[in-house]
Amino acid sequence: MHYKSGPRIKEITITPIAVVDPPLLNAAGLHAPYALRTIMEVITDDNISGISEIPGNKDIDAALEEAKALLIGRDVFQLNEIRHVLVERFGTDTSAQRGETPWDQRKLVHIFSAVEVACMDIIGKVTGRPIVDLLGGKMRDRVPFSAYLFYKYEGAGGELAFDIDPNATGWAAARQASALNPSEIVAQAQAMCKEFGFQSIKLKGGVFEPRQEVDAMFALYEAFGPNVPLRVDPNALWTVETAIKYGKEMEPILEYLEDPTRGQENMAKVRKALKTPLATNMCTTSFEDIPNSVAIGSEDIILSDHHFWGGLRASMTLSGICETFGRGLSMHSNSHLGISLAAMVHLGAALPKMTYALDTHYPWQSDEIIVGGRFKFEDGAVLVPQGPGLGVELDREALAKLHQNYLACGLTKRDDEPEMQKKVPGWKFKSVRW
Amino acid sequence: MHYKSGPRIKEITITPIAVVDPPLLNAAGLHAPYALRTIMEVITDDNISGISEIPGNKDIDAALEEAKALLIGRDVFQLNEIRHVLVERFGTDTSAQRGETPWDQRKLVHIFSAVEVACMDIIGKVTGRPIVDLLGGKMRDRVPFSAYLFYKYEGAGGELAFDIDPNATGWAAARQASALNPSEIVAQAQAMCKEFGFQSIKLKGGVFEPRQEVDAMFALYEAFGPNVPLRVDPNALWTVETAIKYGKEMEPILEYLEDPTRGQENMAKVRKALKTPLATNMCTTSFEDIPNSVAIGSEDIILSDHHFWGGLRASMTLSGICETFGRGLSMHSNSHLGISLAAMVHLGAALPKMTYALDTHYPWQSDEIIVGGRFKFEDGAVLVPQGPGLGVELDREALAKLHQNYLACGLTKRDDEPEMQKKVPGWKFKSVRW
Ligand SMILES: [Mg+2]
Ligand SMILES: [Mg+2]
Repeated sequence: MHYKSGPRIKEITITPIAVVDPPLLNAAGLHAPYALRTIMEVITDDNISGISEIPGNKDIDAALEEAKALLIGRDVFQLNEIRHVLVERFGTDTSAQRGETPWDQRKLVHIFSAVEVACMDIIGKVTGRPIVDLLGGKMRDRVPFSAYLFYKYEGAGGELAFDIDPNATGWAAARQASALNPSEIVAQAQAMCKEFGFQSIKLKGGVFEPRQEVDAMFALYEAFGPNVPLRVDPNALWTVETAIKYGKEMEPILEYLEDPTRGQENMAKVRKALKTPLATNMCTTSFEDIPNSVAIGSEDIILSDHHFWGGLRASMTLSGICETFGRGLSMHSNSHLGISLAAMVHLGAALPKMTYALDTHYPWQSDEIIVGGRFKFEDGAVLVPQGPGLGVELDREALAKLHQNYLACGLTKRDDEPEMQKKVPGWKFKSVRW
Repeated sequence: MHYKSGPRIKEITITPIAVVDPPLLNAAGLHAPYALRTIMEVITDDNISGISEIPGNKDIDAALEEAKALLIGRDVFQLNEIRHVLVERFGTDTSAQRGETPWDQRKLVHIFSAVEVACMDIIGKVTGRPIVDLLGGKMRDRVPFSAYLFYKYEGAGGELAFDIDPNATGWAAARQASALNPSEIVAQAQAMCKEFGFQSIKLKGGVFEPRQEVDAMFALYEAFGPNVPLRVDPNALWTVETAIKYGKEMEPILEYLEDPTRGQENMAKVRKALKTPLATNMCTTSFEDIPNSVAIGSEDIILSDHHFWGGLRASMTLSGICETFGRGLSMHSNSHLGISLAAMVHLGAALPKMTYALDTHYPWQSDEIIVGGRFKFEDGAVLVPQGPGLGVELDREALAKLHQNYLACGLTKRDDEPEMQKKVPGWKFKSVRW
């Protein structure tokens, strides 16, 4: 018996979108009123559609357009070969191409992630299985996330970036409120945990001088008690000395300390000085970084991200590497919608070990482009989608609207520095600040 | 849309078989007249059958029988969970449990390999895809193997272990001929390469004192020239000094040197002294061995084996680890039939990189238990089976016959020492000999 060739790619659509994003502060500046994402849709010769979502960036969108010619006609099951062809065309990424910002700017990993997820969505549909089952099956039905707190200015983003809706209540009110000091951060945490049921908390740091951020962590500890794991992420802005000083102070209250300082060598120094585990999505960000990470011991936990590590199967390989070398694994996030969340949840459900709740920006977004609207969280966790493939479908009306946002907003890539300068004239990104 | 639960395991059959095996010499002694294999058949609630083959061992067969209760009723797609359940029951294997022999004696990896391959055979059948496509798809249509030469006594194994058929010709004649010196090894290589088209050659060493085996390698080089890659595997019987001495001598003619000495520390010493890459299936044999292998640099190439590394997906993870750390990957083999070969070929076809032809004992076996008979080799390579799943079906008549062999031969596990003693009274296995 000979098997049929798999479904072949007939058409690919790349749609950049802009998603309302609140004025969140971070090491690189301020979130623009819109976060950019790119939606890929792959259609097979028998008209099965697969979708994916990656961070939006004009250059990567252009590369995706260019990749189309390499992809049309290919069997969606042949992902090893597709990756090979994309590597031949675009080369592998280097760590240097990642950039110094908290987010990642490499091409190949984004492109292949987009293609792989869309193809696995199709594979799931033609085989009648959710993507998690294509990764070896579910280790858990619900994937836990942590509350992701941000210092922020007042406002909910979008057209009226810094305006607020005075009638908002609950999380909608908290989401637009300012959070510029420890007590406002605690209020944000309380509202977010009440709404989503999160059972661990992360603060995006690297915004204020360390004393204030460390005080915020102690305020959270005070408010939530010892049973809610806490993390803080200064996005590599601290010197080794600062990281050790405040790391030691926070030892009694942290689950882990994320990227306190820049680079593997510095991380290794901090790690030697502290009992608290170190996590990273900035110092070890690709397979090529792993050997030195292992050699010098730069972190305890890798925060994977299928958009940046080259897809879902590559993330499973990363999980195997982490298990082999006694590292923990959790997950990084950027502002995103439900297609990315679905992929993160399928991957999270397949991971053999999950010791840490995953990161997600999802509560900060209000838009959605999947049919049925936004994902629900129960006790801070997302139920693995039940349908075949990703288990989510594109809402084409919403997609068109968010694409209009993209055209209207004029943004073409993420750059938090000019946004910050609108509020703090002359503000400059520094790769090490304190 | 909710997906159906996957096909569930209704029934599992474990059938030990004994396969005619010639009197091949190796570090541990002499192959018995029969090699033991165990065939697993998994039947789903909708009567789909999946099969697998692992090395035969009474204790592992008993563990498989015991595992049945843990497996019946489970969805064949839930392999991550199935592995977890098996780990809970049988524990993970330690390197110590592997033993000192050239073959592996660990339980969990064998059991999970058997279950995973049979389940992936079913997954392939219900999704209409070959197993290679469940591993990300084909990187190549043909998987190359090397000629695997053995020192041996006259005879073809089986009931008339040391008898020969005077009418045999070609490879059938060479297969029963003795090979106890360099010129007989060259003759064996010539017959094997003529029959199967192999384009690289490996000699199983550790049988005679090193001088003779090194001479055999030079005789092969003389006969085949510089374009046929050569390897020799003394199965860890050499001291560091011997390995360095003869390794240096063979530097101009070897593609790689396999397990010249015992243990990672000794391998690392030899590796430092030689330009020839070192390969292993004895010093780094599980994921727990990888960190020290990396730390001390004990080898260049890992010879994977899905029976010993815990299945096909685990072998893909191993491939990712090897790529990450700049190691090569190839494949180890024991005496086996076509079900194992099919699994090896699917895995081999999916590997992103294949720098070395894989090992197989297959030419030494004459039995088969798959419908249509034995696999064909073209230019030393096997075409990836075209059917869904493994692409091979069980020949139940052949299975019954080989199971009768098992019952009749009285062997319950591989032990090459007593077999050797029948020819060389008082012969003893030594873990280091020269
Ligand atoms: Mg981070
Ligand atoms: Mg070997």
